[in-house]
Amino acid sequence: MSGTPAPPDIIRAAYAELTVTDLAAARWFYVDVLGLVVTAEEPGALYLRAFEEYLHHSLVLRAGESPALVRLGYRVRAPEQVAVAETYFRALGARTERVAAGATRGIGEAVRVEDPLGFTVEFFYGATHVDRFTQAYHLHGANAIARIDHFNVLVPDVRAATAYYRDLGFGVSEKIEDDEEHLYAAWLYRKPTVHDIALTGGDGPRLHHVAFAANERHQILHTCDVLGSLRAEQHIERGPGRHGVSNAFYLYLRDPDGHRIEIYTSDYYTGDPDNPTVRWDVHDNRRRSFWGHEVVPSWYSEGSTVLDLNGRPRPLTAPTEQREASVTIGADGFGEVASDGGPGTGFKLGHQS
Amino acid sequence: MSGTPAPPDIIRAAYAELTVTDLAAARWFYVDVLGLVVTAEEPGALYLRAFEEYLHHSLVLRAGESPALVRLGYRVRAPEQVAVAETYFRALGARTERVAAGATRGIGEAVRVEDPLGFTVEFFYGATHVDRFTQAYHLHGANAIARIDHFNVLVPDVRAATAYYRDLGFGVSEKIEDDEEHLYAAWLYRKPTVHDIALTGGDGPRLHHVAFAANERHQILHTCDVLGSLRAEQHIERGPGRHGVSNAFYLYLRDPDGHRIEIYTSDYYTGDPDNPTVRWDVHDNRRRSFWGHEVVPSWYSEGSTVLDLNGRPRPLTAPTEQREASVTIGADGFGEVASDGGPGTGFKLGHQS
Amino acid sequence: MSGTPAPPDIIRAAYAELTVTDLAAARWFYVDVLGLVVTAEEPGALYLRAFEEYLHHSLVLRAGESPALVRLGYRVRAPEQVAVAETYFRALGARTERVAAGATRGIGEAVRVEDPLGFTVEFFYGATHVDRFTQAYHLHGANAIARIDHFNVLVPDVRAATAYYRDLGFGVSEKIEDDEEHLYAAWLYRKPTVHDIALTGGDGPRLHHVAFAANERHQILHTCDVLGSLRAEQHIERGPGRHGVSNAFYLYLRDPDGHRIEIYTSDYYTGDPDNPTVRWDVHDNRRRSFWGHEVVPSWYSEGSTVLDLNGRPRPLTAPTEQREASVTIGADGFGEVASDGGPGTGFKLGHQS
Amino acid sequence: MSGTPAPPDIIRAAYAELTVTDLAAARWFYVDVLGLVVTAEEPGALYLRAFEEYLHHSLVLRAGESPALVRLGYRVRAPEQVAVAETYFRALGARTERVAAGATRGIGEAVRVEDPLGFTVEFFYGATHVDRFTQAYHLHGANAIARIDHFNVLVPDVRAATAYYRDLGFGVSEKIEDDEEHLYAAWLYRKPTVHDIALTGGDGPRLHHVAFAANERHQILHTCDVLGSLRAEQHIERGPGRHGVSNAFYLYLRDPDGHRIEIYTSDYYTGDPDNPTVRWDVHDNRRRSFWGHEVVPSWYSEGSTVLDLNGRPRPLTAPTEQREASVTIGADGFGEVASDGGPGTGFKLGHQS
Repeated sequence: MSGTPAPPDIIRAAYAELTVTDLAAARWFYVDVLGLVVTAEEPGALYLRAFEEYLHHSLVLRAGESPALVRLGYRVRAPEQVAVAETYFRALGARTERVAAGATRGIGEAVRVEDPLGFTVEFFYGATHVDRFTQAYHLHGANAIARIDHFNVLVPDVRAATAYYRDLGFGVSEKIEDDEEHLYAAWLYRKPTVHDIALTGGDGPRLHHVAFAANERHQILHTCDVLGSLRAEQHIERGPGRHGVSNAFYLYLRDPDGHRIEIYTSDYYTGDPDNPTVRWDVHDNRRRSFWGHEVVPSWYSEGSTVLDLNGRPRPLTAPTEQREASVTIGADGFGEVASDGGPGTGFKLGHQS
Repeated sequence: MSGTPAPPDIIRAAYAELTVTDLAAARWFYVDVLGLVVTAEEPGALYLRAFEEYLHHSLVLRAGESPALVRLGYRVRAPEQVAVAETYFRALGARTERVAAGATRGIGEAVRVEDPLGFTVEFFYGATHVDRFTQAYHLHGANAIARIDHFNVLVPDVRAATAYYRDLGFGVSEKIEDDEEHLYAAWLYRKPTVHDIALTGGDGPRLHHVAFAANERHQILHTCDVLGSLRAEQHIERGPGRHGVSNAFYLYLRDPDGHRIEIYTSDYYTGDPDNPTVRWDVHDNRRRSFWGHEVVPSWYSEGSTVLDLNGRPRPLTAPTEQREASVTIGADGFGEVASDGGPGTGFKLGHQS
Repeated sequence: MSGTPAPPDIIRAAYAELTVTDLAAARWFYVDVLGLVVTAEEPGALYLRAFEEYLHHSLVLRAGESPALVRLGYRVRAPEQVAVAETYFRALGARTERVAAGATRGIGEAVRVEDPLGFTVEFFYGATHVDRFTQAYHLHGANAIARIDHFNVLVPDVRAATAYYRDLGFGVSEKIEDDEEHLYAAWLYRKPTVHDIALTGGDGPRLHHVAFAANERHQILHTCDVLGSLRAEQHIERGPGRHGVSNAFYLYLRDPDGHRIEIYTSDYYTGDPDNPTVRWDVHDNRRRSFWGHEVVPSWYSEGSTVLDLNGRPRPLTAPTEQREASVTIGADGFGEVASDGGPGTGFKLGHQS
Repeated sequence: MSGTPAPPDIIRAAYAELTVTDLAAARWFYVDVLGLVVTAEEPGALYLRAFEEYLHHSLVLRAGESPALVRLGYRVRAPEQVAVAETYFRALGARTERVAAGATRGIGEAVRVEDPLGFTVEFFYGATHVDRFTQAYHLHGANAIARIDHFNVLVPDVRAATAYYRDLGFGVSEKIEDDEEHLYAAWLYRKPTVHDIALTGGDGPRLHHVAFAANERHQILHTCDVLGSLRAEQHIERGPGRHGVSNAFYLYLRDPDGHRIEIYTSDYYTGDPDNPTVRWDVHDNRRRSFWGHEVVPSWYSEGSTVLDLNGRPRPLTAPTEQREASVTIGADGFGEVASDGGPGTGFKLGHQS
């Protein structure tokens, strides 16, 4: 890194802005069903936060022609880190754009960049403070969401993307590899949880999902129950279940535009500098579901289009190496065969979910 | 029913006896993993109960050549009801056998019958009392099981089987039908829960599963976590999830011999005489999973062999009418297509689990 | 019992009618905070039910001059059991009154009696059916209540009251006694839970509380959190905690008029005829709180006035024998001293709550 | 701070060493009941950790003549920070002692200091890594503890102690004050939770408690149930309940020597630099219990003796200003009277717990 400017001091994944084609349908999903708090509403946009958040928003929904990820937002540790970020990305040859406070409602002065992975990313410090509803329990539904947790993105070259994020100061908590050290996916963090960003191999750049954290598992189960009650169970794509990677209890939903949202609880503390990186073998069926459940094909193959700084969709690049789904899932859509099925040995039949 | 003797006054589903081919492996599964309490152990047999039970056992595992259901046991309300049962089944033309107290360890005088559906069923009142471990919390694992709940059996003609059980005094809590009133499955009870017996259409007579009740959902989730920890996740066949039918939170396991065990919580009170029967349309994807998850094919097609009073396997009869899986699951193993996928309308794509 | 008419076949505790002095305040407490469903609302009265109930109501709140219990309602197994009840209570010398369907909105033909313990009790079968919201999860708050569970009443002579209820066909699940077999409290049931009625020694007749069942403990904890959020924590009288007796997880609230409401989960199945009666020694600090917590004095001493068939308050009779609070709680309001405090021995200091 | 050396870069509260008078009794409490994992055992000492920890220990129990706190351990971010700490404390005039790796089994080179508040505190980076049992679910009891969370200490001057810790780089998450800005207690953090250290006003220096984090509330409830089952409920001092301060769900236990242990879950993220400090009025009954429960007097008045670097007990200094208990709790041991008791107004009667 000698000669390279210092990277900005990033605190954490802070917000995402998505375009949605039907803002009323999106409001139904994120506010009525998931219970996110409306900080502000204006023609064409909704600014939402979770109950324990005091920054203006962690999710912006903006009406648009087609569904897409407009921007991922990372918060930096101090106002002057915005300029640090600008310098850093310029040195990388990335296109950058300084925006004034309020360019995104509730967000202070910021720099937006087209990062080397193809994502539009904003770095900001300033943000409007709003009420933290941690103890406003009378407003919490049975599926209350606490805070945004992380982003997960599809990239064609996970190894290169990991190197990029490590240079930005992220630590690697977990990864999926094979015996040839092909890297299928990686989880990286700034705040002391398992991740602020996960890198999943696939056609990219695309957004795989935005994840929010809940406090207890029953809150996640309740979201499923509510969707069933509303005959809207088609919004449940995968789970609930336990991830092998990260140990978190998860649920994947698809919003009315197909954007994928994860609700997530109980990962673990990673804040010590020697936090061990956990390596999962790509053939261990427990890596994606600790209970051995198959991964539905759509979860591997689908993601949200990413927009550049001009709002134009980014072209996709396919991986040049083998994909996780193809090495673990056969043509029938199911996983590898267990070696023998006896207690405590072998892998589960992917299909026996 | 005029001219027919009165049926016995059945309290509830009380115990099942299974043959297992490797008693040590079965002990690992039922005692080490599931935490059932060993009431008695003898060469070739294990007598197990759950934490809130004070009768001698709710599950007998007996070493045998091949896995099978030996017998389902119903408890009757008084000692003299054993003779009532004998008279009733003789009048039905069923083969019956009176056995002395202790014929099954811990069980009093009983009558065993080959019921009209082809199952060997025992009716008993007397049973040895043992300690109820309800408040022995220091012995409860994180996946503690409270009590046996019900049996689920595969029968070729659900309508005829339902009539047989209604004559025995069972109420129908829920059922799956189509618009032509073809009955695909039915749930019937004596104790005031959703069921003591469920009737599932399929090649029969076979045992679909024996179900145990837990008190809270996290206890069921923990069983999955333990199986993952032990690299024994292949024992998880389906779930955890929420049933549409019965509303219960479920998990289906397969023991080392392939016997299916359900762990189950939170069904509802049915004890008033006018308890409404819930009818589910066979095309409603929420009937088997309220969250719209596909049902794995093995769950529909596999079951345990049933033995007659002489310990010989019962031959199977196939349904003459269409099966639930064939009307709801295509050749690809997945469910019906949703009508349009908009919020609050249509059914879920079975595959989007 | 020879020569006595047969008692009515009671199914369960079904509803209570309370007078409240401020119906709007009561609505806030029962509907806004506890989440009970409003079946019907009319000037001067509210008819409420819990989410899993399909009968018209389990709680009636009626505006009145002073807070009181108007009536306890038991459901009987068939319409003709109403007349059986009338005959039975007349034979006991009790004052009875037949009322037409609709005398209480939603309730069919019934008989009301002034029972020998001094309570006004109604026996009914007919009731209007309404939607069961078991699976209307989008309407369930995080503190959702499933169904009414039991009544608890203060009576001066627990032994006599127990005999009265046993004659009515109730079984005794648990009791608190001392070595002289003085009976301080008893729990009796018809439906197969620990109780439909609890008898607590004290000045009587008074209502101690009406109890509702929730499905899981976190739902009960959430009610506390909501009350804290609303700065209405003074409505929490005792708990949450675990009862020794009944094993249930409990919370006692006081409504704006001082009526005591219990929210309760996880008692156990009692439906077999030989269900063992659990005897607790009055000196075991775990009987009222399995965790050894002191019982607040108000919980022992306060209760709701009971009205007769004419709506006049019943006079109170004091116990002639010693009271539970006086044998276990000293003048300082705290419990007995532990013998030594070592692990696994002795009783807890009541004050060390 | 000009002229003062830089403080060490502290990561978090890492371990405590306690002397216990009966190591077998302590083992029963911490290992058999609480389920902490034994990393190492030697004559006279036990080294324990929680399930998600990979450092050698978070609690050392050492046999001694009388119960005391030997040392609090903070982990610093890098090996060279040990020397930074030494320099910093020498400049403060504190007595310091460098110790070689292994001076405490499993801990690398360290510096121990007698801090200005009178506590013996160790700063270390190096530590032996052991297996992280996060996913060893088959070893987790129903009351599994995840990790150490914080220390709470009694100090006579909370304002001065807060200034000392702020100089060390800690942020203030919450505090209890009165209108005269008398500071009764403060919570300070390095890792992004509510605290690594809490400062409670009282005779000091003494240890108030060591706190461990669990993942969900039911795990904390289970510890109470286990203690009841073992007739060891006298170890429960306070709770379970919800703190107003920190929002965490808590339980306070006393070990066989009287050391106080908190089990704790669900506080909130504090990792952004502008995390708002929450101020609680000392007269708000919800500050210590969000549910308005009284605080038992022992909780305010009792604490563990602190040893100096030579193992000699530290003398105590009493506060010169009013104590929290005396301004909020009357001579009867109970709290302030509510203003009127109407819904949503006033404070709870402390006694109505």
